[in-house]
Amino acid sequence: MYVCVVQKAYQETDSVISSVSTKVKGFAFTNTSDMGPRVWDTADYVIPPQSDNSFFVMTNMVVTPTQTQSRCPELPSPSATCVDDCDCTEGHSNPQGSGIQTGLCENYSTTVQTCEVRSWCPLEIDAVLPKPALLAAAENYTVLIKNSITYPKFRFHGRNILPHINSSYLKRCEFNHATDPHCPIFRLKHIVSEAGEEFQDMAVMGGIIGIIIDWSCDLDSWAGKCYPKYSFSRLDNKHHVNNVAPGYNFRFAKYYRTADGEETRTLMKAYGIRFDVIVFGTAGKFGIVPTIVNLGAALSFLSLVSAVSDWFILNCMAKSDVYKKHKFTYLSDNSGTESISLGTSYGTE
Amino acid sequence: MYVCVVQKAYQETDSVISSVSTKVKGFAFTNTSDMGPRVWDTADYVIPPQSDNSFFVMTNMVVTPTQTQSRCPELPSPSATCVDDCDCTEGHSNPQGSGIQTGLCENYSTTVQTCEVRSWCPLEIDAVLPKPALLAAAENYTVLIKNSITYPKFRFHGRNILPHINSSYLKRCEFNHATDPHCPIFRLKHIVSEAGEEFQDMAVMGGIIGIIIDWSCDLDSWAGKCYPKYSFSRLDNKHHVNNVAPGYNFRFAKYYRTADGEETRTLMKAYGIRFDVIVFGTAGKFGIVPTIVNLGAALSFLSLVSAVSDWFILNCMAKSDVYKKHKFTYLSDNSGTESISLGTSYGTE
Amino acid sequence: MYVCVVQKAYQETDSVISSVSTKVKGFAFTNTSDMGPRVWDTADYVIPPQSDNSFFVMTNMVVTPTQTQSRCPELPSPSATCVDDCDCTEGHSNPQGSGIQTGLCENYSTTVQTCEVRSWCPLEIDAVLPKPALLAAAENYTVLIKNSITYPKFRFHGRNILPHINSSYLKRCEFNHATDPHCPIFRLKHIVSEAGEEFQDMAVMGGIIGIIIDWSCDLDSWAGKCYPKYSFSRLDNKHHVNNVAPGYNFRFAKYYRTADGEETRTLMKAYGIRFDVIVFGTAGKFGIVPTIVNLGAALSFLSLVSAVSDWFILNCMAKSDVYKKHKFTYLSDNSGTESISLGTSYGTE
Repeated sequence: MYVCVVQKAYQETDSVISSVSTKVKGFAFTNTSDMGPRVWDTADYVIPPQSDNSFFVMTNMVVTPTQTQSRCPELPSPSATCVDDCDCTEGHSNPQGSGIQTGLCENYSTTVQTCEVRSWCPLEIDAVLPKPALLAAAENYTVLIKNSITYPKFRFHGRNILPHINSSYLKRCEFNHATDPHCPIFRLKHIVSEAGEEFQDMAVMGGIIGIIIDWSCDLDSWAGKCYPKYSFSRLDNKHHVNNVAPGYNFRFAKYYRTADGEETRTLMKAYGIRFDVIVFGTAGKFGIVPTIVNLGAALSFLSLVSAVSDWFILNCMAKSDVYKKHKFTYLSDNSGTESISLGTSYGTE
Repeated sequence: MYVCVVQKAYQETDSVISSVSTKVKGFAFTNTSDMGPRVWDTADYVIPPQSDNSFFVMTNMVVTPTQTQSRCPELPSPSATCVDDCDCTEGHSNPQGSGIQTGLCENYSTTVQTCEVRSWCPLEIDAVLPKPALLAAAENYTVLIKNSITYPKFRFHGRNILPHINSSYLKRCEFNHATDPHCPIFRLKHIVSEAGEEFQDMAVMGGIIGIIIDWSCDLDSWAGKCYPKYSFSRLDNKHHVNNVAPGYNFRFAKYYRTADGEETRTLMKAYGIRFDVIVFGTAGKFGIVPTIVNLGAALSFLSLVSAVSDWFILNCMAKSDVYKKHKFTYLSDNSGTESISLGTSYGTE
Repeated sequence: MYVCVVQKAYQETDSVISSVSTKVKGFAFTNTSDMGPRVWDTADYVIPPQSDNSFFVMTNMVVTPTQTQSRCPELPSPSATCVDDCDCTEGHSNPQGSGIQTGLCENYSTTVQTCEVRSWCPLEIDAVLPKPALLAAAENYTVLIKNSITYPKFRFHGRNILPHINSSYLKRCEFNHATDPHCPIFRLKHIVSEAGEEFQDMAVMGGIIGIIIDWSCDLDSWAGKCYPKYSFSRLDNKHHVNNVAPGYNFRFAKYYRTADGEETRTLMKAYGIRFDVIVFGTAGKFGIVPTIVNLGAALSFLSLVSAVSDWFILNCMAKSDVYKKHKFTYLSDNSGTESISLGTSYGTE
């Protein structure tokens, strides 16, 4: 009972403390009218360049180069079209729009008039998404994941680059559940396909994939080694029903300054796959306290079990009469005995 | 007992695995002497552009444009003022200062002399913070939060865009505890006010707000549906007593290169609100093992209870005599009986 | 039993909800042939400028300025050297290489020919790492860590800037386990040395350090105050055996646009220390439910104990005979009594 109170029973499990670092490798080539021929390397397509438990690989994009702070007619939409200036409200900002209205109605094209907005112009036109994805070659990128973990209570340290693996193997290996289950280098296409998805489909709109590293271990000395187990699953919702803003994308800008000091920017709407590395695990180790508590509770339950099973047999089973007779014969004998014995006792008092 | 040992009892709860993505929408307009008229969009005020479980919205700033690597006199402060070069130490870097001293004492203004430092010059002057906040319009930004969760043990998947919600609703809805508790689109002002704060106050110095999504669920089939519950609270400390560096701010720079190849930068001290999306939850489901252990332990406790309550009544209660008499009468009778019965028995031996 | 079932026993502990913000201060000076004399401040060396639970401080780097999209011969390596164009495959991208091959074999130097690649040229040469680290002065940077926590179930709020600390102390204090255990300002060198590492060694290749804040508390009113406890440990693996990509580094680029509109970039391979702030803790508070369950289980176990110890004494101990005789004498007397008593009873029926 001392241990129960002082040790606050049931603490012989421990949660993992983990650190993850990732390194993506690979090149892609694009040749668009906007940007001309261009090679993309890690510094171009991993945004932000470092993060703690996830990394984003850009697979598709809408680029709007050379935007400046100015005024331009809004993109045509039911709420932006206008006939004259009265349809536009100075200072109004439509949540679906692209800027703050100036109150003027301007020609967007020869046939459509829209409200003018103050914004970064020209405006981004993201209605048409490149398909197949511009950086479709991303499927062949590889990522090295380094993961170190600690179970502080048990002073256990582990890492996903196992001690028996030598460096020449690491230079050429590639993760595969069947053949290379401990190689920490993953091909992006393989990760996505293990998660049950098609890389090229996902590359167009983007998404979120979980790389789950399970360090659940039995650290008792008689148990085996503690190795990480990898699994993969899509974390965002791929069904397009009721799906606002499907996929995964965000906008960022590269800012430039022209020779005469004016600021311009290149706006990128980046579509891509965010890989979240999720490390979890609970280590268990033999502890006398949980053993006692569980054993005790179980024992106590056993006495309940006999009572309940009796009740069950006596009342619910067919042929319960046989058992009942047998049981109660004995019981009534016994109680008879006792009453008589008591009677005798009282009599001799 | 078998189940207790092998199944390591008490594991019929499961922790959530979650993925979050966020998308902020809205425009703000500023007109300062430094930058002229300027519209701010998502790519300008969300820094960094993507992150996994939090997003930062800039609400106020101190801009120092066109800094270059050079030398300039330190900002006046008790530790930086000087009379002649002897007061300045070449190579010294004051932790409260702005760069590395060159050892010279220069005129900061016609009245003050300070030590010259090698740094990005001109130096940032952040003593005066714009009030009201420059991007006060941020209160009308909206954010769409997409959250998918999994309870791996129970193979339960959920997301905060519920199946019964249709997309036309999602185009116009806005979260409100009373009227739209399942709309995943939040107005920033509403979030902050639900956390018990005033947006415009917070916008000046910045802060951290937690958006807490609670997926605690009873997954048993007889229980109801599993829905997320949102709550909001300020996570940093708003009290200014003993508050070093109150609010939330950080510095970042945009780097430019002039026509003659010299590097310049625009330094931004960005104040704003960081929204941390905290997803938590424990799902519970009927499990035979915890049931047995808890029942057993409780049963065993019940026997303790009767002993303790007897002791309590006999010793601590007024009128305990009545009970005591009653109890002990019976007991003494009984023990009398027994002793006699035993006596008899011995006698017959 | 009611409480056990309804309250789902054992929930009187709670996990921490935490928010962290960090602010690094300090300057470093470098003078390299590439960049000339240069002072580095927080906006230069903390990448990305803000993050939720970690911060990265650059300590060393390989800078490749003025890269443009063009073609150049690959760096010499066994797989890149060639004799004529037949050795190079157009469109091939070597995972260890620097770009996408054009199919030509060019002179890398007067003695070596390598396959030409389309890439950002000139290529980065990262074979030689500056040693000592370029930003070795980073050891004197300080970081202010602000951490607020909540135990939602117990409505307990805490922060690492304790109420009894005044602001003049915070201006000059520096964390030290012995003398200033509650100062939230840490010198990077001190953090690294508490983690058992040498800062200057680690600065060359980089690494990951955990700053662990333990808020485990007994919140019962009779217990003491709830204070954070800091500890530090290296989270990545420092042993260079089998260590692919040792240390911690990543590449990022600053993009520029020349006067004639051509895009150039400065590629930085940044080595440095990522500090992960890991907040953990479980608060416990007296709860009647866990008390009952644990007591009950323990009681039940005690009855098992007596049985087991009897068995142990009777069978395993020397001199067990003495005890056995004593015990069984009494037992046989007792059973003799009973059988006789029963016999009598039967007789009188």
